[in-house]
Amino acid sequence: MSDQLIQPRTLSGFRDFLPEAMIPREQLMETARRVYRSFGFVPIDTPTLEYAEILCGKGSEETDRQMYRFMHGKRDVAMRFDLTVPLARFVAQHQNELGMPFKRYHIGTVWRGERPQAGRYREFAQCDFDTIGTTSIASDIETVLVINDLMRGIGFEKFTIRLNNRKVLNGILQKADLAEQSVLVLRALDKLGKIGADKVKEEILKTTHATSQQADCILQLADISGTTAEVIEQLGTLCDGNELAEQGRNEISEVVNAAATVGLNDDNLAIDVSIARGLDYYTGTIVETFLDDLPSFGSVCSGGRYDNLAQLYTKQKLPGIGASLGLDRLLAAMQQLEMIPPTRTTADVLIIQFEPGDIEKYLAIAADLRTAGICTEVFPESVIRDGKFKSKKLNQQLKYANRRGFPAVIIAGSDELEANIVKIKWMEDAKETEVPLKSGSAEIVEWLAQRLN
Amino acid sequence: MSDQLIQPRTLSGFRDFLPEAMIPREQLMETARRVYRSFGFVPIDTPTLEYAEILCGKGSEETDRQMYRFMHGKRDVAMRFDLTVPLARFVAQHQNELGMPFKRYHIGTVWRGERPQAGRYREFAQCDFDTIGTTSIASDIETVLVINDLMRGIGFEKFTIRLNNRKVLNGILQKADLAEQSVLVLRALDKLGKIGADKVKEEILKTTHATSQQADCILQLADISGTTAEVIEQLGTLCDGNELAEQGRNEISEVVNAAATVGLNDDNLAIDVSIARGLDYYTGTIVETFLDDLPSFGSVCSGGRYDNLAQLYTKQKLPGIGASLGLDRLLAAMQQLEMIPPTRTTADVLIIQFEPGDIEKYLAIAADLRTAGICTEVFPESVIRDGKFKSKKLNQQLKYANRRGFPAVIIAGSDELEANIVKIKWMEDAKETEVPLKSGSAEIVEWLAQRLN
Repeated sequence: MSDQLIQPRTLSGFRDFLPEAMIPREQLMETARRVYRSFGFVPIDTPTLEYAEILCGKGSEETDRQMYRFMHGKRDVAMRFDLTVPLARFVAQHQNELGMPFKRYHIGTVWRGERPQAGRYREFAQCDFDTIGTTSIASDIETVLVINDLMRGIGFEKFTIRLNNRKVLNGILQKADLAEQSVLVLRALDKLGKIGADKVKEEILKTTHATSQQADCILQLADISGTTAEVIEQLGTLCDGNELAEQGRNEISEVVNAAATVGLNDDNLAIDVSIARGLDYYTGTIVETFLDDLPSFGSVCSGGRYDNLAQLYTKQKLPGIGASLGLDRLLAAMQQLEMIPPTRTTADVLIIQFEPGDIEKYLAIAADLRTAGICTEVFPESVIRDGKFKSKKLNQQLKYANRRGFPAVIIAGSDELEANIVKIKWMEDAKETEVPLKSGSAEIVEWLAQRLN
Repeated sequence: MSDQLIQPRTLSGFRDFLPEAMIPREQLMETARRVYRSFGFVPIDTPTLEYAEILCGKGSEETDRQMYRFMHGKRDVAMRFDLTVPLARFVAQHQNELGMPFKRYHIGTVWRGERPQAGRYREFAQCDFDTIGTTSIASDIETVLVINDLMRGIGFEKFTIRLNNRKVLNGILQKADLAEQSVLVLRALDKLGKIGADKVKEEILKTTHATSQQADCILQLADISGTTAEVIEQLGTLCDGNELAEQGRNEISEVVNAAATVGLNDDNLAIDVSIARGLDYYTGTIVETFLDDLPSFGSVCSGGRYDNLAQLYTKQKLPGIGASLGLDRLLAAMQQLEMIPPTRTTADVLIIQFEPGDIEKYLAIAADLRTAGICTEVFPESVIRDGKFKSKKLNQQLKYANRRGFPAVIIAGSDELEANIVKIKWMEDAKETEVPLKSGSAEIVEWLAQRLN
């Protein structure tokens, strides 16, 4: 071997996930899968690499610039930068096999070569669900219910799903005769929460040909607030006389009413008529999700309804609705809120190993516990230290258990095993209990099952 | 929109996973995670992209040629082609934080630009587990037990874990005075199963300086067969007098005996003294796993013990043992053995939707079922066909249920809902049962829970 070591390091913007980060990350993905499946969404996966023309097709200049794109032999290829473009390609390619409506979830890694900064990575996971091939309000309602179950499943109670409908915005733009300048108006309106109504009006007057009256018409939206019932009432007057706006209002109302029947009420649902989520992609229902305890954190689950998913790849019009759970953002939030226990083990119990000769007895206990659903690690008796192998003493093994966060440790030397007992040490209070080891490990299982969740 | 459509297609060697392929794939990964965790292995993840020098470091010419490698700005980067090289870099970089021994699993995608052919893809998943920082035989034993639990967890009963130890091979090469030519001898010996002992001897004589006597000494290995007890006995004589070979034999014996104590016996465990698994990486225990019903399919879970995982990145010697579950191979095998039900849904029940006006009642039933752990889909009432939206008739919704493989369908029009009953159709025999809808959906839950697993 050459003496020249290669420095172990990762690329800027890329991360290793150590166990203490990966354990809650896997749990979060499992919760998402469980919730998606409970509504009948099915999993798919698509390739990491696609023909660059497929991924560029829909991209803005920004996504084009951020794409990891290279030549592989004669092929111009790129790594996916989101899961929506691949979904569009996928549905266009397989629509006959899939059948419509098609409800899918997709948890996958995406890559964007943007400048790395705090909380922004070049490689991150997305966690999307979509219902394609239907304009039914049933799927708008379901989208909100899925988000509710996701948030509760993850462990949040204090969150708010903010609901809006692009038809309300577009209808009111029509009413104010500003539909042609919607991009500029919405760009200004998006800043409402940050800069206030006066500044928004100033911007509208400066960037568009709107009169003060037209701007005021739009800014009526800014005054709308209150409970869902109150907002719907206020929207009544505002939307009256414009078919599109009325339709949007009715859709909001239907979603709110249906959500209430399954217990999703104003505690966790609000109407926010100012959110637009980008300028032209969404066409109906829009949702964002905020954490009440971290109001400035931004949305952790967002999405909405679109008219035509795959127009670049097929003439078949494919409307749908979907949302994306911000996995890495959520984890960061949970860390801040101290919702993640600092565990570095997946096992409930560590069996201390004294005599290598007793390994078969330890393994038998471990097998019994696993059969009973208790994850069990047997400590390997030697460890590397200062380049040499040394056998580990009891307190070193206990330190290992402690450092990794095992709830319980089973301690049994040859004497104990001979006498058919083990000691179980509950790490939280360091109390030791003697438990008999009779036929199998039934008593140990019983003792542990009572204390572990 | 331009009229020019982009043809939806994937790159050669890359795959879309449609739901019927992705559902069992996710299940397999979940089984692997469950088994790994039950032994206290912890999850990690590493970046898809690494500095090319990191990934090339250990590579053979073959892996170098197959790597997806490109310049990103000024950086020479590549996509990982396995999970072992990233593990070596990871452990070298974080060894102090991780602590030793360190037991990790890693399920991740890897990329190799090899020529695509039947069953060979350029993008595929690996599913590895390793125990690092210990030479304890306890981890050799555990590796075999994990494979046993993996295979059973996935649903296999008829499989054979083939066990060998490189120390036996190397010791016998020493005895025959052929240690210096081990590469050529092992290359010939690897063909034993295919070409037989005579041809292997021929090759040894042709490619090495071995005498006929030396070759015969090696070929004694070919005559060793029988139960684990018989093989261990035969190895006794063969290994006697060479310390390394004796050590290897004792290690095999310890693994076999310990496995027997937890019920892993000759039904699923065999010693195969001819397997070497490559020429220089492994140094002790070696394992391969074969399906008894598909003997020519090759190994679906392989691995072994190594002396020094991360020598390219650190001076710290890191011995360990690990194995890799061949996820895609296993799925292909399960398909061949018809072990995968042809389901395209994750839900147990589809609720038919007659009247959009009754959506709230359907949603309430669905919410009750989900709370009881029954995955439930509510059919969205309209569907795209010939470019237009049409409401779906009952038999069309039943066709949807049938095509996707829902076990049960709940049918309730306005009349039924008014009378507080629903009909449940069990799809297998098409029988319909009336079930009362009283307070909540307790009766529906009870009826379904009895019939679903």
